[in-house]
Amino acid sequence: MGKQVVIVGAGAGGASVAAEAKRTDPSLSIVLIEQRSQVSVAACPMPYYIGDAIGDEKKLIARTPEKFRETGIDVRIDTRVEEVDPNRGRVRLADGATIPYDTLVLGTGTKPLLPGIPGEDREGVFTLKSLADAVRIKAWLKEIPCRKAIIVGAGFIGMEMCEALRNLGIEIQVFHRGTLPVNRWDREFSQAVLDEIRGHGVEFITEAAIQAIEEGNDHRLKLVTNHGDAEADMILMAVGVRPEVALAQQMEIELGESGAIRVDFSQRTLREGVYAVGDCCESFHRVSGRWVNIPLGDIANKQGRVAGRNIGGGSMVFPGIVGAQSFKIFSLEVAATGLDEREAARSGFLPISTLIWGNAIAGPMPENTKLGLKLIADRTTGKLLGAQAVGKAGAVSRINTLSCALWAGLTLDDIGWFDLAYAPPVGPAWDPIHIAAQKLRKEM
Amino acid sequence: MGKQVVIVGAGAGGASVAAEAKRTDPSLSIVLIEQRSQVSVAACPMPYYIGDAIGDEKKLIARTPEKFRETGIDVRIDTRVEEVDPNRGRVRLADGATIPYDTLVLGTGTKPLLPGIPGEDREGVFTLKSLADAVRIKAWLKEIPCRKAIIVGAGFIGMEMCEALRNLGIEIQVFHRGTLPVNRWDREFSQAVLDEIRGHGVEFITEAAIQAIEEGNDHRLKLVTNHGDAEADMILMAVGVRPEVALAQQMEIELGESGAIRVDFSQRTLREGVYAVGDCCESFHRVSGRWVNIPLGDIANKQGRVAGRNIGGGSMVFPGIVGAQSFKIFSLEVAATGLDEREAARSGFLPISTLIWGNAIAGPMPENTKLGLKLIADRTTGKLLGAQAVGKAGAVSRINTLSCALWAGLTLDDIGWFDLAYAPPVGPAWDPIHIAAQKLRKEM
Repeated sequence: MGKQVVIVGAGAGGASVAAEAKRTDPSLSIVLIEQRSQVSVAACPMPYYIGDAIGDEKKLIARTPEKFRETGIDVRIDTRVEEVDPNRGRVRLADGATIPYDTLVLGTGTKPLLPGIPGEDREGVFTLKSLADAVRIKAWLKEIPCRKAIIVGAGFIGMEMCEALRNLGIEIQVFHRGTLPVNRWDREFSQAVLDEIRGHGVEFITEAAIQAIEEGNDHRLKLVTNHGDAEADMILMAVGVRPEVALAQQMEIELGESGAIRVDFSQRTLREGVYAVGDCCESFHRVSGRWVNIPLGDIANKQGRVAGRNIGGGSMVFPGIVGAQSFKIFSLEVAATGLDEREAARSGFLPISTLIWGNAIAGPMPENTKLGLKLIADRTTGKLLGAQAVGKAGAVSRINTLSCALWAGLTLDDIGWFDLAYAPPVGPAWDPIHIAAQKLRKEM
Repeated sequence: MGKQVVIVGAGAGGASVAAEAKRTDPSLSIVLIEQRSQVSVAACPMPYYIGDAIGDEKKLIARTPEKFRETGIDVRIDTRVEEVDPNRGRVRLADGATIPYDTLVLGTGTKPLLPGIPGEDREGVFTLKSLADAVRIKAWLKEIPCRKAIIVGAGFIGMEMCEALRNLGIEIQVFHRGTLPVNRWDREFSQAVLDEIRGHGVEFITEAAIQAIEEGNDHRLKLVTNHGDAEADMILMAVGVRPEVALAQQMEIELGESGAIRVDFSQRTLREGVYAVGDCCESFHRVSGRWVNIPLGDIANKQGRVAGRNIGGGSMVFPGIVGAQSFKIFSLEVAATGLDEREAARSGFLPISTLIWGNAIAGPMPENTKLGLKLIADRTTGKLLGAQAVGKAGAVSRINTLSCALWAGLTLDDIGWFDLAYAPPVGPAWDPIHIAAQKLRKEM
């Protein structure tokens, strides 16, 4: 009998641990515990499921409990771990039963933040975190039927949900405490995002303080704000998430500065025999050299593979991230990587930046569109520190290329001369990457 | 009075030299000599001009002679340099006049290859090299009018011209001496290109030996081949180009192994005071460590800027290329970078490779398409040596990211964990880059 591995949480991270550990050492006894009814759910496509771009919720499930069971993994859905006793090496479930472990993996994910206002628990007020949330939202939209929705928050989930709900013909108001959406991006790019959503009929209310949710007319919801009351058939709270670390804290596992679980490059926590993966833990940021918490599905997948391999007796390290991120809002690609100026300054760099608007493909081509690209570099060394891009096409492509440059620690001297695949329908001879890098190099 | 710079050839390379040298040192006296009637022509979009995607030929001209003259550059169009006297430092024109120089730049480009068969000089037989060629072809297509065209050769120009001519409703036969188009790519990807053109009604004749061009019925052209005769209203010879080095040879300037002009990282030839830029000279290939001749507009632009800066008294190096290249054929993006297996073996590596078909974006998204990706790496060190990609979307994006990896000399260990901008409409969590790199790493 192999060692027993208990994995708490079967999202992208935990499910990857289970699959990889079993592949590496089939003799392992693996128990995969999930408080919800599905495992291995791809959370990121949920707005597209709600917006009917993805018709079938099954498409969001990478691997069913049955599939896991076929490989000999003991999957427990609808099962909640209440407590861990690290000294005796066992977890206690909600029903009082205990499961012993030799190795424990925390893949507890995030919990959505709520603004903490009266009425936020009313029916028709949602957060979007689990597949169950998505299914509930989709059912609600059909049941009501929903003519108007309010989205509180203007991060990328809020933006993606604007598109999803507009696709269903639903009127939308976004309430945001700031003045522009997606504050990771330069104000000029955030303005482009705002123009895009307004161009698609979304009403965007700035500097909003939300105060309460009450019952409105005809059983609708009424959001009380500093700008007056607004009524809607549903309200989505998309004001952010934080790492779910309750079990880690109960076990006195050290957290990092980010508030997420501290891990090393092999995904081990500071407590012997306990790993952590995914949104609940930190990642090494290769540009800043700091450990950060960036809750994204691709990172969770990778960390899960690393932990699983190591638990199975292999040796694998997760070499970290550079902060690549993107979303699409209507016809606009929005992407960023590395650090912005504030983060760069906090990490001890002397950031300089430039922002240009160039051609996504060759200028004479009729399909050409404008691409905005911002580069941030260190004034002293010329090292690239970050990049942001916005455009109808080509933004993600540039950010991925520049993510590789960040990964390798390249300077503007290199980036200004990159050899990129040039052809009129796919890119200009002088790419915005070249133009921006050479411009910023001159300003150094 | 500043020094006199004579630039022979005003394509992308020569025109860039003129602009950058003048910017760097306005006191320079610059003579830009071009045997054709236009300068600074973007050659790469010409198929799109012929296919009416670009309506106006002026859009192919980055800078007119008048614009150059406004900056004080002496532009001589329709002027051919017959000879250079390097000892006396002067060029002799076709009309016998001479122009002295302190610095000479060769930007003589390429000349199209012809198969050397009887009748290849008939009216209606074209090569596509200059804007004048493109204008002549476009006029011919309208004059005839052209119902059917034959393309000889299946490189990327031949492929782009398939799309251009099909867009005009013209029937096409491609005659190719090999069995598959675009031999830089893996046979599986070349097959995908072949399927794409056949799917758009292009007839592709393999293992063709063309023997003569004769007059056919109704004054059409008749191509005589080992597969019988074929008639058409026009024939495009797209069997390749070679560097135009006649002047260089006449001056006894050393050529490289590629047959193109040898230069250093500052674009100087081995003869004092003489620079070369663009398709007529070599570039340093950062992966193979060899000097190669890859005639592409983006490289010419870069080399022109480097030579111009140095001629103006600045100091700039062209750090070389990694062999990135792409084209689009109907709805297929086709791209490659680095070395293929043969080139890798010739350069002293022990190449191993893998070819996968993955998702261009997240699998559940309705817009997802299949993406083929091949990676070539060195068995001993795990260093990436090359990559090829084919797909309706995302091929160029991956190749550009991997071009950066080649630039930086990264290994599969890095590439398998790249942090790429993940979001369902723009990429999968495990990108084909990750999947291919981790797979190949395992096979090492």
